Amino acid sequence: MSRRFVEQLRDGESLDEIYLVTDKQLRVNRNGIPFIQMELRDRTGAIPARLFNAGEPVFRTFDNGDYVQCEGKSQLFQGGMQVVLDRLEKVDPHKVLPSDFLAQSEQEIPKLYERLRGHLHRLQNPHLRALAECFLMDDPFVRAFTTCPAGVKLHHAYLGGLLEHTVVMMDIADRVVPFYPGADKDLVITGLFLHDIGKTRELSFSKAFGYTDEGQLIGHIPMGVEMLTEKLAQVPELTGEAFPRELMVRLKHLILSHHGTHEFGSPKVPMTPEAMLVHSIDMMDTRMHMILREVKEDRHNPSAWTPYNHTLGRRLYKGGPNGDLYSSDGGTYD
Amino acid sequence: MSRRFVEQLRDGESLDEIYLVTDKQLRVNRNGIPFIQMELRDRTGAIPARLFNAGEPVFRTFDNGDYVQCEGKSQLFQGGMQVVLDRLEKVDPHKVLPSDFLAQSEQEIPKLYERLRGHLHRLQNPHLRALAECFLMDDPFVRAFTTCPAGVKLHHAYLGGLLEHTVVMMDIADRVVPFYPGADKDLVITGLFLHDIGKTRELSFSKAFGYTDEGQLIGHIPMGVEMLTEKLAQVPELTGEAFPRELMVRLKHLILSHHGTHEFGSPKVPMTPEAMLVHSIDMMDTRMHMILREVKEDRHNPSAWTPYNHTLGRRLYKGGPNGDLYSSDGGTYD
Amino acid sequence: MSRRFVEQLRDGESLDEIYLVTDKQLRVNRNGIPFIQMELRDRTGAIPARLFNAGEPVFRTFDNGDYVQCEGKSQLFQGGMQVVLDRLEKVDPHKVLPSDFLAQSEQEIPKLYERLRGHLHRLQNPHLRALAECFLMDDPFVRAFTTCPAGVKLHHAYLGGLLEHTVVMMDIADRVVPFYPGADKDLVITGLFLHDIGKTRELSFSKAFGYTDEGQLIGHIPMGVEMLTEKLAQVPELTGEAFPRELMVRLKHLILSHHGTHEFGSPKVPMTPEAMLVHSIDMMDTRMHMILREVKEDRHNPSAWTPYNHTLGRRLYKGGPNGDLYSSDGGTYD
Amino acid sequence: MSRRFVEQLRDGESLDEIYLVTDKQLRVNRNGIPFIQMELRDRTGAIPARLFNAGEPVFRTFDNGDYVQCEGKSQLFQGGMQVVLDRLEKVDPHKVLPSDFLAQSEQEIPKLYERLRGHLHRLQNPHLRALAECFLMDDPFVRAFTTCPAGVKLHHAYLGGLLEHTVVMMDIADRVVPFYPGADKDLVITGLFLHDIGKTRELSFSKAFGYTDEGQLIGHIPMGVEMLTEKLAQVPELTGEAFPRELMVRLKHLILSHHGTHEFGSPKVPMTPEAMLVHSIDMMDTRMHMILREVKEDRHNPSAWTPYNHTLGRRLYKGGPNGDLYSSDGGTYD
Amino acid sequence: MSRRFVEQLRDGESLDEIYLVTDKQLRVNRNGIPFIQMELRDRTGAIPARLFNAGEPVFRTFDNGDYVQCEGKSQLFQGGMQVVLDRLEKVDPHKVLPSDFLAQSEQEIPKLYERLRGHLHRLQNPHLRALAECFLMDDPFVRAFTTCPAGVKLHHAYLGGLLEHTVVMMDIADRVVPFYPGADKDLVITGLFLHDIGKTRELSFSKAFGYTDEGQLIGHIPMGVEMLTEKLAQVPELTGEAFPRELMVRLKHLILSHHGTHEFGSPKVPMTPEAMLVHSIDMMDTRMHMILREVKEDRHNPSAWTPYNHTLGRRLYKGGPNGDLYSSDGGTYD
Amino acid sequence: MSRRFVEQLRDGESLDEIYLVTDKQLRVNRNGIPFIQMELRDRTGAIPARLFNAGEPVFRTFDNGDYVQCEGKSQLFQGGMQVVLDRLEKVDPHKVLPSDFLAQSEQEIPKLYERLRGHLHRLQNPHLRALAECFLMDDPFVRAFTTCPAGVKLHHAYLGGLLEHTVVMMDIADRVVPFYPGADKDLVITGLFLHDIGKTRELSFSKAFGYTDEGQLIGHIPMGVEMLTEKLAQVPELTGEAFPRELMVRLKHLILSHHGTHEFGSPKVPMTPEAMLVHSIDMMDTRMHMILREVKEDRHNPSAWTPYNHTLGRRLYKGGPNGDLYSSDGGTYD
Repeated sequence: MSRRFVEQLRDGESLDEIYLVTDKQLRVNRNGIPFIQMELRDRTGAIPARLFNAGEPVFRTFDNGDYVQCEGKSQLFQGGMQVVLDRLEKVDPHKVLPSDFLAQSEQEIPKLYERLRGHLHRLQNPHLRALAECFLMDDPFVRAFTTCPAGVKLHHAYLGGLLEHTVVMMDIADRVVPFYPGADKDLVITGLFLHDIGKTRELSFSKAFGYTDEGQLIGHIPMGVEMLTEKLAQVPELTGEAFPRELMVRLKHLILSHHGTHEFGSPKVPMTPEAMLVHSIDMMDTRMHMILREVKEDRHNPSAWTPYNHTLGRRLYKGGPNGDLYSSDGGTYD
Repeated sequence: MSRRFVEQLRDGESLDEIYLVTDKQLRVNRNGIPFIQMELRDRTGAIPARLFNAGEPVFRTFDNGDYVQCEGKSQLFQGGMQVVLDRLEKVDPHKVLPSDFLAQSEQEIPKLYERLRGHLHRLQNPHLRALAECFLMDDPFVRAFTTCPAGVKLHHAYLGGLLEHTVVMMDIADRVVPFYPGADKDLVITGLFLHDIGKTRELSFSKAFGYTDEGQLIGHIPMGVEMLTEKLAQVPELTGEAFPRELMVRLKHLILSHHGTHEFGSPKVPMTPEAMLVHSIDMMDTRMHMILREVKEDRHNPSAWTPYNHTLGRRLYKGGPNGDLYSSDGGTYD
Repeated sequence: MSRRFVEQLRDGESLDEIYLVTDKQLRVNRNGIPFIQMELRDRTGAIPARLFNAGEPVFRTFDNGDYVQCEGKSQLFQGGMQVVLDRLEKVDPHKVLPSDFLAQSEQEIPKLYERLRGHLHRLQNPHLRALAECFLMDDPFVRAFTTCPAGVKLHHAYLGGLLEHTVVMMDIADRVVPFYPGADKDLVITGLFLHDIGKTRELSFSKAFGYTDEGQLIGHIPMGVEMLTEKLAQVPELTGEAFPRELMVRLKHLILSHHGTHEFGSPKVPMTPEAMLVHSIDMMDTRMHMILREVKEDRHNPSAWTPYNHTLGRRLYKGGPNGDLYSSDGGTYD
Repeated sequence: MSRRFVEQLRDGESLDEIYLVTDKQLRVNRNGIPFIQMELRDRTGAIPARLFNAGEPVFRTFDNGDYVQCEGKSQLFQGGMQVVLDRLEKVDPHKVLPSDFLAQSEQEIPKLYERLRGHLHRLQNPHLRALAECFLMDDPFVRAFTTCPAGVKLHHAYLGGLLEHTVVMMDIADRVVPFYPGADKDLVITGLFLHDIGKTRELSFSKAFGYTDEGQLIGHIPMGVEMLTEKLAQVPELTGEAFPRELMVRLKHLILSHHGTHEFGSPKVPMTPEAMLVHSIDMMDTRMHMILREVKEDRHNPSAWTPYNHTLGRRLYKGGPNGDLYSSDGGTYD
Repeated sequence: MSRRFVEQLRDGESLDEIYLVTDKQLRVNRNGIPFIQMELRDRTGAIPARLFNAGEPVFRTFDNGDYVQCEGKSQLFQGGMQVVLDRLEKVDPHKVLPSDFLAQSEQEIPKLYERLRGHLHRLQNPHLRALAECFLMDDPFVRAFTTCPAGVKLHHAYLGGLLEHTVVMMDIADRVVPFYPGADKDLVITGLFLHDIGKTRELSFSKAFGYTDEGQLIGHIPMGVEMLTEKLAQVPELTGEAFPRELMVRLKHLILSHHGTHEFGSPKVPMTPEAMLVHSIDMMDTRMHMILREVKEDRHNPSAWTPYNHTLGRRLYKGGPNGDLYSSDGGTYD
Repeated sequence: MSRRFVEQLRDGESLDEIYLVTDKQLRVNRNGIPFIQMELRDRTGAIPARLFNAGEPVFRTFDNGDYVQCEGKSQLFQGGMQVVLDRLEKVDPHKVLPSDFLAQSEQEIPKLYERLRGHLHRLQNPHLRALAECFLMDDPFVRAFTTCPAGVKLHHAYLGGLLEHTVVMMDIADRVVPFYPGADKDLVITGLFLHDIGKTRELSFSKAFGYTDEGQLIGHIPMGVEMLTEKLAQVPELTGEAFPRELMVRLKHLILSHHGTHEFGSPKVPMTPEAMLVHSIDMMDTRMHMILREVKEDRHNPSAWTPYNHTLGRRLYKGGPNGDLYSSDGGTYD
């Protein structure tokens, strides 16, 4: 029987399903009787839940971050859905399918991965192609790279997000580089592949999305350079030649400068055509992804404007009441 | 007989050619004998020139900005070329081919223009297609738009630069928009066409590149909105329908927000997916053009680095002595 | 019988009056019985209200932004006034006097308007005087201009605020321009008249103060330039002469630069004496209005300081306990 | 016989006059014969001068900053005036009228001073009036205050500039304060009087305009507070009462906050209506003075634009070729 | 019997103790019965408290900021401690030991003061030593200086904090100045002593920590200069000589520039070696104090990171689960 | 015979010495006779030189950056020293003592190195001590580290500068860390040792100070992390244990955050007490070094102020005419 996801729950239905707990609180009502309040989550969203007549003993049987088997009923309350629980029991995390609980790319990972491999196999430069091969032969790396989100909240914050972000950027580069003779396509493609690989170490994404301690203290940019250095040491085994020093320096520069300015955490600004192109495509894809997601998530809200977004520092315009670009309305004094 | 350009002059050759005068100065030598010093220019560069034994009467026969017939000799002096003049006479500007004196796009204008028309004719939305048609039917506009540079110094600073910049951006949009379903391609293409049309009024480019008074006091962004408003009034004649109000607002927003932030002179930040895409492509093309031109102009300089560029706030790396990405050199202590 | 305003309500009085609803919420009490909570507003302020024993059917009969006839009782609760409703019914907005619900200038609009007309009639330059006449003959414009607030929240946020702000600035210019020979008074006066006219299209103010979609996407600065362009086309009918091109450019520059810097949304910085004076007077009047309003609204609070104001980034000093500038108190260690 | 000022010198006239020397240099011509080059200055400007056939012995008889009696001839050279000297001799600075050498206000100092006294005598508050009296009774202060420039270069950089700046601001306040009931006029007038008094100690202006060491290390804002503190100690002798503590604090705050923001060197931002008004009038007068002076000094230059001004970060528009606001020219593609 | 501090209260104990009240509110429960809610504070922290069945008459018997005798019971509720009161009565503030209610330095004040005196007595320069003596002979000053906190919230926010901060900086200077020959140690030591003396007038610290009105309007930097000026007038009585003018200017500069930049409220940037050293040591000590306090206060929280700190704009890393620098854990994909 | 340094040359002395050539130019005099102009440099400064009657053949025998044997005469000319050459011949760079041509630390390198070793040997933590040992055993590293300057121009720009900067910071840390219990001294000392090691690869310093290509594209911060990573791999051979992962992360964080903010090129801000201390000591030492050098280099200039320094954005005060802190002069109007 298929899983009942949070976004599918409707008024009045019975419930017996596993969710992830967050924000648990022990409260008492006006008559002094305790109850437990929490949020239940899966990859489709979160819903408030209450277990009445339950005190500290039950409260201690589970923690935020645990998976719990929930029995009860979902109901409409004050215009939103909530769950009233009858019973709640912690379950072994290994019995759970993580992909049910973490947001995932809407695209198929194997297909994205094939596009990635295609781009890397088409590299002309033998050193760069061998470097890519060293990464692709590293199974733990490939597993991490194809699973990792590209961010915790801001953009591509879902499993497979890093892969999706990277592949789309490569596809764009394929089409855009020809307009800029003077920029080396192999370098751009390799730079896009490498630019965010450090996120596989900066982020934790096995249970919920967050930063590793190491990630917070070092950051994905220096981590990416380190991962590149590790792999560069293996290339000569494939090619039988030393990896060219200047090429190595250019690759590191692509990673180090991809945020574009010091203010955004890049220790170097782009100083080659390829570095500027990697940075420009990254900016474009990141911002477009944030904006389109913002608009999409707010699509059921009848207002013409999304709520204020603090990262972007603005609200976005979704358009007139009919979702129609070409309606004639609005009005001024005349 | 073909013209002798500034960049072709060699040591010891006789000269009888027209140049543009700038920086003229009346000086006296140690013996009190006056001479005239100036720069002679055409679209390929500038060269210092002197007319000895000439005083104020001659000095007054021409002005900076005049075209002059020059007779004399070119010679090597202190490591650079200069011209020693025997005679100099002002000529009627109408006898001159402006394209000899102003830098020009290296691409063929008629071909670029065909690409522009192609993009505009492929617009699906009838209102936008009609709007584009109104611009294309306006001969003075087309003449200005296909002649105007995109900037005075920073990027695409040559005749046809605005057209070239616009067409390349449209080509890129053609390839990039499909990655962002949720962004309307017709709006993006039209926005790119319109984003810098105000430059045809902001800049003067008949003789040398500069700003019109009006351009400095108003700027190409509000000027572009005005030009759009003028044309929008003509569209209903073609379509038989009122131009949709919301569509008009969106088009104006695309022009007003294309610099991306207040700091760069946009009175509005991008608030629609299309506005963000127009801005992102503009940033990418502008920066790539600046960087590649910088590298190209410095290609004969043996240094691995271009001179410091104040607009970019950096030097650019051109690469190792062989222009070869894959040489093995450089060195640290080990 | 005169209206009972929010700020007049006292403990224990019966109530039968129309208010504007905002922030309505459906809640349940501990016994599971639903009640409705909302805010009731008119131009003098807002008061919380509750309708007990009322559920979703009633909740759906009205919306935020509706006018409702309210029966019930006002009472003191936790140190503040609230309303307990017995009944509540939506009323036709046309039966309502908008001026009861939107804040209004404390000054008489007709008198302010006479001062405005006086300033414009005293213009010496015939083109500018004719331009002003074109605006004054446009009834919908005059109605909007004399009704519109100057802002949604920050300053002059009341009906007539734009007119009041404009007229006070003109009065000040009248007195200040003579100190700056070299600044043209006619240009300054016309610039002040025009600087915020775009707000009549940027803001919506028929029911509650907000931004129109068009206002958010375009902004009052480009909108003001457009309104000016429209009217400039009518001037030659009055004067029989073309409107001087340079004068037109200077007027547009006054509007475009009046925020003073790019950061504050002006696409151009002031480049003429008149533009700098328009900007300086606008800054002075705007800030003084914010500060004096802040102090006035907090006058009943016994603290020597107003609450922190986020727009100003500071608290304001209202003065010693007696409201007396000249008391002797305060104290340090000595 | 009246003095021959630098700006009056014409081609071919004989010269026997005192000037201030700056930028002296010892040079040799191509034949190895030394000559001395320098600039001669008075309050109307500077002119280059040469003394041929003069070597180190003469070079040592005078220094930059000395006054010298100059005999020779003025002549036109390379489009500018210069002086060829026959003889040059240092003179006793006491024989010189300083006002011939330092720029001066174009307004009459005694009249400005009367306007200042008028404003101060009209103060209603007895403590403030007595405080003003203490300053006016202090002859060295009055001498300094009526002589001091308001700046070294940026604005009002001439003898009497501080007085002129202060009095104009007071005149403006007289006319503007009535529009802001809630701001105390006595405080504003006194604040304007005090705001820059520290400049009398920050600047040196006996020979050339500069900063005192103390001025650079402390600045006119803290210096002004100190001068106020000194004078406050004398007030009770006049009034027979302690000076009110709160009033003292408010006055210091007016001085400390008059630059408006930390960035411009104010340790406090304006937190009272009077402080905001003092700051706003100061900004307006300072900027208007800079702009109008810039335009005026460039009035003989035929360009429509002043040269780039680094303090303002812009060029200023002076207007069309006829200095006429209402000419019809300019031109775009149509 | 010793006092029962907030941080000592445990579940289920009876209470009869004095606390400081803040945040008092009158509320009603669902049955309409009023109760009073407030926070009780002493120097060790704050705890929520409720007095049930008490209405407006009781509510009016005390105010925020009053000391109250509290009878009742402490209990664990929802994971935190709270107090349920039976009775509450305002007490005379003179019966209270202020040091029970304000946070205090953990170091012994008399010992810190001895270290301060030691530093000042070791000054070599007789003028500076005499200046220091004038401060030390001023009992009210010494009392204030040894009691005052160094800040309201950010760092050293406890009684004695200013003294502790000053003495530690002097100790550091003692050890650091020798590395910078060219910096005068006497000036550095005196500068450190003086840099924050203005805080004794800027802050109020008799009951709760805050700013005096005067402190907010003037600030501790100008106040410190004033206090220095007052004392400088007394020095000649001790030394029999005028205080050297340049030395005075240098001392004032040390105070005025110690925040390092305009942005942080210094009207002057450091322009002498001593000023730069005073500023650098102040920055180091202030930041180290904030960071170490943040880490210490969060030591019982099992997370490896402190909560986000808005002043620092970051979270701080406390380290691995064992508080052990040298554990081996963490994990990435490999 | 000892070398004749540039700063020792006096009027009229004969010269036969090796210098480094920069800025060579071929010129002609008024009679058309060519001469060569250049600058001669050694570690004490630069002096202009001319070789008369020498044309292109000689001009081509040497380049900027070459060492040349110079015969001729030094003479005073226009108030400065210059050299008139009789003969000039390129010499083999290996015959030259580089230390004669590059500025050097005034301290003895072996003594500084001993202090460095002392600090590292006193580390308590065995892993850190072993790590330091791995660096000290690496001869090429030690040679580079003890030779490298700490900067190209701004501070410690001389051979041995990096060592001197590092050792002084360690000495300071030794004295300062005890004031901050909660900061681990071993980590601070190791962090200071490591913070700038990347400069040995970022800078080139064999002939003149500059950046390597690699240094410009990557920067010393990521380069330092790489060098650390390389050495960390060797530690287990010494200790027989894995290097603790958390300790490794903390060390990298110390390097990555030592510039304190993103704006200054750190990809991470300090998030541990040790990182804040490393950053604070680095800021202090860097700024103090710049200021004291600036004052020292200008010590012979009679002005009380150094010239404007663009990096610091200020002039520095050196003090009164007698170099005496305690003179009584200066003067204001009183």
